Parts: sequence; C-alpha cells; structure tokens
Amino acid sequence: MPLPPEFALIAKYFAPLADTPAALGLSDDAALLAPPAGRQLVVAADAMVAGVHFLDSDPADTVARKLLRVNLSDLAAMAAEPLGFLLTIALPKGFDSVWLRGFAAGLLEDRRQFDVPLLGGDTVSTPGPATLSLTILGHVEPGRALLRRGAAAGEVVWVSGTLGDAALGLRVLQGRLRGLSGRHAAYLSERYRVPEPRLELGRALAGIATAALDVSDGLAQDIGHIARLAGCAAELEAPSLPRSEAAAAAIGLDASLGLLAVAGGDDYELAFTAPPGHEAMVRGAAEAAGIGVAPVGRLLAGEAGEVRVLDDAGRPVRLERTGWSHF
Amino acid sequence: MPLPPEFALIAKYFAPLADTPAALGLSDDAALLAPPAGRQLVVAADAMVAGVHFLDSDPADTVARKLLRVNLSDLAAMAAEPLGFLLTIALPKGFDSVWLRGFAAGLLEDRRQFDVPLLGGDTVSTPGPATLSLTILGHVEPGRALLRRGAAAGEVVWVSGTLGDAALGLRVLQGRLRGLSGRHAAYLSERYRVPEPRLELGRALAGIATAALDVSDGLAQDIGHIARLAGCAAELEAPSLPRSEAAAAAIGLDASLGLLAVAGGDDYELAFTAPPGHEAMVRGAAEAAGIGVAPVGRLLAGEAGEVRVLDDAGRPVRLERTGWSHF
Repeated sequence: MPLPPEFALIAKYFAPLADTPAALGLSDDAALLAPPAGRQLVVAADAMVAGVHFLDSDPADTVARKLLRVNLSDLAAMAAEPLGFLLTIALPKGFDSVWLRGFAAGLLEDRRQFDVPLLGGDTVSTPGPATLSLTILGHVEPGRALLRRGAAAGEVVWVSGTLGDAALGLRVLQGRLRGLSGRHAAYLSERYRVPEPRLELGRALAGIATAALDVSDGLAQDIGHIARLAGCAAELEAPSLPRSEAAAAAIGLDASLGLLAVAGGDDYELAFTAPPGHEAMVRGAAEAAGIGVAPVGRLLAGEAGEVRVLDDAGRPVRLERTGWSHF
Repeated sequence: MPLPPEFALIAKYFAPLADTPAALGLSDDAALLAPPAGRQLVVAADAMVAGVHFLDSDPADTVARKLLRVNLSDLAAMAAEPLGFLLTIALPKGFDSVWLRGFAAGLLEDRRQFDVPLLGGDTVSTPGPATLSLTILGHVEPGRALLRRGAAAGEVVWVSGTLGDAALGLRVLQGRLRGLSGRHAAYLSERYRVPEPRLELGRALAGIATAALDVSDGLAQDIGHIARLAGCAAELEAPSLPRSEAAAAAIGLDASLGLLAVAGGDDYELAFTAPPGHEAMVRGAAEAAGIGVAPVGRLLAGEAGEVRVLDDAGRPVRLERTGWSHF
C-alpha cells in the first residue's frame, strides 16, 4: 500500500535532515538519544507564523534557516552547544511543494553548518497561515550556563555585533525604506532574514558574563529582563550602540531610524553584563569568537527593570515603544 | 515598567505549570535540566490546529489535556517515562482570556496527574486559528525502548483498551451520530476529547512486546507501519477488535460504524506485537498495568506494509480509507 501523502513528504524532504541514529529514520513516535555524559540539557522552543514573524515574500529557505537560527540563538545566549531539533509545521492545504522543497533545503544547509540534526516532529494542515514551531535541544557543562539572572547594579552592559540591522532590513523588504544602495539594502535584508546565532561567543563568555540573553524583542526591552531579575535599573547610551555601515547609511537618510538599535527586534545579537574591570576578559572572549563587542550602558540602582536610553547629551530619550510584543 | 502583555500572560497562566527548577521560572531563553543518570532521552512533538485536530466547541481544558496526552501517548508507546514539556501556542489576536485560563487549568490538572512540568516555550499571535505545538521529553532505560521496528512475520498483533471510541465520539460531538443514550454519548465524547496515555502498559511491555506504537491514525494504517518495518503484511480480524459498551450501542444503531475500530483515529491505545506463545506474559503485563488487552490479528508473509481486515466469515473487508492522513 502506498505511503499516505504526509509520510511520503516526510520521507522525501525531512529524512535527509535526520541523519542520526537518534531520529530512528523519523519512523517512530519519538526520537531516542543518549544525552551527552556529564552535561546539562538546554531546551528551548520558538514559533513563527507567516505574515507575522516572517514575510510571505521571504524565500522558504531563509524562513527555515531563521526558524532554526532563532532557536540556536537561545542556546548561544546560555553558552550551550546544539544537540538536535524537533519541528512541527502546520501548512495550508494545497501548499506549494516548491515552498516545502526550499524550506527543507534551507534547513539542510544549516543542519550541516551547525551540526544539528532533525530528531522528529509533526506535519499537519491548517486553514490558516503556515505556522512553524521548532524545539531545540542543547547541552552545557553543569554550572556553566549563562542565565538572565545573575547580574548586579554597577555592572557594564555589552552587546555583540551591530544593532538595528534586522528592523531596518524588515523596512527595506516592506518597501518602507528607500534610497539605500543595493549593497546596503541587501545587507540589512539578509540580517533580517538570516540571523547569526552567536554560539562561539556565548560559550566564550561562560564564566565571564554575569547574565546574558539574545536580543530578539529590542535591546531596551530585553535588557529590562536582566535588570528586573537583578532588582535594578539599566541605562543605555544611544551613541554607544554599535551600528553597521548599512545602518549608518539608513540613519543618514532618516535620523529617527537610529532608535531601532534599542527598540527594534530580530537582531539576535547577545546582550550581557560583566563587572567593570572585566573589559579585557570580555574583549578577549569576543576576539576568540571572532565577533565584535561593545559596552553600551550599565546597570544601576533604580526601579527593577526600568530601562533609560540616553542621547548624545546624556538626556533621556523617549521611546514610543521599547520593543516587540507578541500581542 | 509594566511587563508587556505576553509576559504578563505567561506569568499568570503558565508559571504555575513550571514549578520545577529546570524551567528557571520561564524567565530565560531555555530550560536547563540534568538528564536522569544512565537513561536514554525520548523526545516527541505533536501539533494541533483548531477546527482540524479539535473542535472549536471543545472546552479549552480538554484541548490542553488532549495536546499533552497525545504526546504522553508517544512516550507510552516507547515504554518511556515523562520528564517535562515545552509548549508553543499561536493564538488569534483578541483571543478570549477565558479560553486561555481554561487551557492552563487543563494543563495544570494533567501536569499533576502525570507529574510532567512545563519547561518552556513561546506564545505568539496569529491571524489564523489557534495552533498548538507541544514537545515532550521523557526517559527510558537504555535498550528498553519499544520501537515500531522489531516485529516479525508470525507474531500476534495486540491492542489495549477498546477501539473506535474516539472516532464515534467525534461523530457524536459533530451531531452526526444520534440516538445513543446520554451516558454512551458522553463516554464516547470523552474518549475523543481526553485520551488516556497507556504509560504503565508501555513500561510493562518493555522486554515482552517486539514492536509497539500508539493508535492515532487508525489501527489499519498504524499496524501498516509495524508491518512495513518488519518487511511483512498484517491481518486484522474485525470480530476480535475490542469495543466499548458505548461503541457496541452505536454499531447497533448503524452497523457500518463498526469499521471505525480499524479506520478511525484518535484512540491512543497501544498496538503491539509479541511472539505466539507469549500470551500469558502479555496478559500479565496488562493486568499489572490495569488495562485490558486483546489479540486482534497477526503479521504474516506478504507485501511489506499491506494490511488486510477480515470479517466474521474470514473474508477481506474493503476499507474506503485506512486511516487519517494529515493532508
């Protein structure tokens, strides 16, 4: 008897991603794996909805890579290493098999790049938009995970890479930001579509950073989580925020876009805290990981979780919104 | 600064489910847990879409319990014990907070019953129907997991409990099956809405059954998987299929409903194989687990994965569809 369509699809597109004995050829109810000896497990899940978390015009391969990478970014923020992932996808009836082929190709590319196999999941149909959920498993040496808690007033706030690129890239893709060179427009779009999980940096910061997270909802909102758990406030210096050449060009066209470095989401850079005086250690870790880092503010006594952004003159900036909220 | 609505919701409804240190109070990017020493991990994920996998009229608490239980059932089929779960939910904008409260209450009830805490996840909005994805983690003694592979021609096919109830319950809830007593209608509806994961039976069958799975897509289709992996065919005897009193009453009203025991999905009973002569061991395991089991057919030489259903007179029954397909 022929395989029902769902199983044929899984075999065709997803089996090549599941090239690990743990996945049992995707033929079983669950994956079966030996956890790495002497390690803690790190487990996260993120969902993405077409038209909400990605554009209908985004290529299927970059949608897949973003879905995997935002989860890898959660591992990066905790200094963990990837082990494997599970995927549930709800697709519109009569979905395009070209889309699914592109989606699987994107996953396969990153499955290789990050050495993270598919372990299992579920494929269902939906009358709504494509809805994708990915659960990632990772591992870390016991006691070495970076958490959001653990920071203290007086510590320095650092970020990796550059901020605001993804939010600008979204505007480029939506046709809301014109006048950039093709190179800059492409750079920002790619930063939105294919974020770079900072796995090496996260691991290098274990034992150095006091708290960490990945910037998904906007730096101001995300740093608020670290500050809240530390029972203090945070201050970010807008002029210190690292910007890409492309972002600087965009801000040159419209100065108000500068605030996307604190209020825009989707950059998936790491934000972390370290005691003052640990600058050399932080910079050494970043150099080993091959990524730039910059001090952008500090934690200080104040209302738990309150975040202030200061402009060039040290005056508080009023943000219309501090980040991305899912409702 | 107040928590954004998403975080307030999570704190309000989901934090009570996450009463384990591993969940880190749901405040981090991921959960952090020590895997049980000397055990293999078992990991599965299933998705459910409103209007596709559950009825819009289903109470929110039973939707939550079904979502958790279908995943627990995957652990049961592999003889594993639950460890925890992650949940991603995509909800329509302006969703009903009464619904979310009921959903969380249902999860909490089963979190206690099955001792399975929430470890993490994601909450997002969708312009489409509510879309729920759950990943479950479990553990099993190395080498003791039951798999779909491992059976052989000549072995006996067994099932637990009774079959066809859930498919009949769906018809009751859709108003397509009338004339039953209130008690029978309620019994069948409950079997559809709140399946019973056979965790004790799965564990009791480790070392006895040669292959196992949970019946989610219909017995004929599901046994086809075991037969395909065994490189043989399967034969099911329709008169041997165990039926509840309520199912018997429904079949009394309409004899054609009898085939739902082989073609209907959603029962989440275990189907498994054991060598002939192991009947006493199988029955002993079932008795220890407190659930009935019945031999319903056999694996035999033939085209790999082909499943024949025989009627009272031993004649093959023609099935219009062998089970539930997701596309």
